[in-house]
Amino acid sequence: MPYPETTDAFTVTDIKNWSTFKRQEVPLKPFEETDVDIAIDACGVCASDVHTITGGWGEDIPLPLCVGHEVIGKVVKVGSKVKSLKVGDRAGVGAQIGADLNCANCKADQENYCPNQIDTYGAKYPDGTVSQGGYSSHIRAHEYFTFKIPDALETSIAAPMLCAGLTTYSPIKRLGAGPGKKVAIVGLGGLGHFGVLWSVALGAETYVISHSPNKKDEALKLGAKDFIVTNKEGWAEDWKFKFDFIVNTADATDKFDLSEYFSTLKVNGTFHMVGFPDKPLPQIQAQVFAPNGCYMGASHIGNRPEMIEMLDLAAKQNIKSWVQTIDISEAGCKEAVERVYNNDNVRFRFTLVNYDKVFGKRA
Amino acid sequence: MPYPETTDAFTVTDIKNWSTFKRQEVPLKPFEETDVDIAIDACGVCASDVHTITGGWGEDIPLPLCVGHEVIGKVVKVGSKVKSLKVGDRAGVGAQIGADLNCANCKADQENYCPNQIDTYGAKYPDGTVSQGGYSSHIRAHEYFTFKIPDALETSIAAPMLCAGLTTYSPIKRLGAGPGKKVAIVGLGGLGHFGVLWSVALGAETYVISHSPNKKDEALKLGAKDFIVTNKEGWAEDWKFKFDFIVNTADATDKFDLSEYFSTLKVNGTFHMVGFPDKPLPQIQAQVFAPNGCYMGASHIGNRPEMIEMLDLAAKQNIKSWVQTIDISEAGCKEAVERVYNNDNVRFRFTLVNYDKVFGKRA
Repeated sequence: MPYPETTDAFTVTDIKNWSTFKRQEVPLKPFEETDVDIAIDACGVCASDVHTITGGWGEDIPLPLCVGHEVIGKVVKVGSKVKSLKVGDRAGVGAQIGADLNCANCKADQENYCPNQIDTYGAKYPDGTVSQGGYSSHIRAHEYFTFKIPDALETSIAAPMLCAGLTTYSPIKRLGAGPGKKVAIVGLGGLGHFGVLWSVALGAETYVISHSPNKKDEALKLGAKDFIVTNKEGWAEDWKFKFDFIVNTADATDKFDLSEYFSTLKVNGTFHMVGFPDKPLPQIQAQVFAPNGCYMGASHIGNRPEMIEMLDLAAKQNIKSWVQTIDISEAGCKEAVERVYNNDNVRFRFTLVNYDKVFGKRA
Repeated sequence: MPYPETTDAFTVTDIKNWSTFKRQEVPLKPFEETDVDIAIDACGVCASDVHTITGGWGEDIPLPLCVGHEVIGKVVKVGSKVKSLKVGDRAGVGAQIGADLNCANCKADQENYCPNQIDTYGAKYPDGTVSQGGYSSHIRAHEYFTFKIPDALETSIAAPMLCAGLTTYSPIKRLGAGPGKKVAIVGLGGLGHFGVLWSVALGAETYVISHSPNKKDEALKLGAKDFIVTNKEGWAEDWKFKFDFIVNTADATDKFDLSEYFSTLKVNGTFHMVGFPDKPLPQIQAQVFAPNGCYMGASHIGNRPEMIEMLDLAAKQNIKSWVQTIDISEAGCKEAVERVYNNDNVRFRFTLVNYDKVFGKRA
């Protein structure tokens, strides 16, 4: 019972052996007239994939599970109600694949905060089918969660933008990055490097805050104005009241002295988190916000208008993700998730490619 | 060496006996040409006074200490450079009595976030004098931190506005309270009742969230549209995505399930704290902000323009603090701080009055 009922997927079957991928057919949701079927050509490897399959975000995950939510491929089928894509188009799917599209949040272009949202993998559709991600031959998605990829963007470069890109673009845009603003990005990895790219592209004076002195050159190459190392005591002293906002992409926030980071914010500035570590935040007193009346918060991906705007910005300004490609296979998936887990020289994002080699031409 | 070198003060001399007040002369800062001397007629009793003298905010406080930072009295002396007040005016002093008035924050009307700010009591002036508060005969303040009290406001009613009023007014204003906005105030005490008054006065639909069902009538009398009790599980279910922002005035935030409070916020809404409990906040994961992309933060009093605007609003709309008065004396100070500490039927604020009885006419 292969496609269109199932997708040929590299799946995790046991969170104890989270880097062992088994290739097998897993069911797709029933096709509806608002759906788009995509034969996948590439998929970015996101830290979320690793948090999920290792059980770091909770051990209750549906197995077998195929992760991957930075998906690009060719449209092979569209429902009769689909207007924005046609067969043959190159299209992407990010980390969200469903929502009720009917609630107050959805109507206000906040579908990424819809209480009935469906994640691209590991979530249940109303009929009970578990959503399955992009380490596989096909994906089926409601049109609203599919995006035409601008011609100027290469597939392997564009793929990581669909989750890591949007996750950083949305808050950077909403918090008002632009000329005259000073923005700091904490952590220079998959998310952080996008943070720098978008902030610079939007015209903000952009800084990187990192505990790794050896990332300075890369930060400057990405367009940062300066690089701030946190590995010596009192590092924040020179940066008091400096930034309009900080986007924290680090996974080690549990080890942060948050008051130091907060102290670098302007009055009423914002410390915004886009990474969701397994460990809780350090415990704080309400007083740590008081010296500058600052705020701390987080966001969840972004909305459709922001996705389209981001892809358009990348195409127009020729913004390129820093990507290493790995051919998809059981071994390729294993290497990718293990190196992300171990933070093993990922500069700054993996994209799984060469899907035709294992899945054949699927047009 | 009485006034103008000293003030006749009810002081705490030992944090173990924090409700035992000893009347004694304590030094005032040297008079400068920008200073205003005020013969005090009333002082509000703030939870900060109690946090300070009990050592709850830290045991390292300068003793003897006279607290009180909601001070109103008659101007008895002005320096040659003072323009906004003259002898005989009724004037107030809030929780801040100094700043460098020269830094980027001060120049941007953010003097309440000046790194060189001086608290009204318990802080050191550059010459080493410790600032002393309003449970005393006189106060000396830089003109910038003195405020003419509008004629329409009674002294005992206006006093608590100078700290508790401003502390709530500033964030409610900055977060955009007004017609079409939905605001929730958590906790109905000294701070919370002002929160309701200001939010309603600015035109926002205002709700009170409280663990005490018996405060409902008072909430409605203050102008709240509805009252939400948190003493049963799942209380937040009916209020998801409801409020533009929440102002938390509670002292028991350490016991909160913050995710429930956050869940009542609209997308990108704000949970804003104005009370600073002795205990730390509950430890959370970054993920708790994700369902609606919300923010948490706090503020420290407000700035001069906000103080003037608030007093003006109160005068124009005939807004009255709910105040019980207590005659100043050793026994009166003791009763006031003990009842605030024990949360013993304070509805909603004490003002110490009848200063002439103990200090005589000081014009």
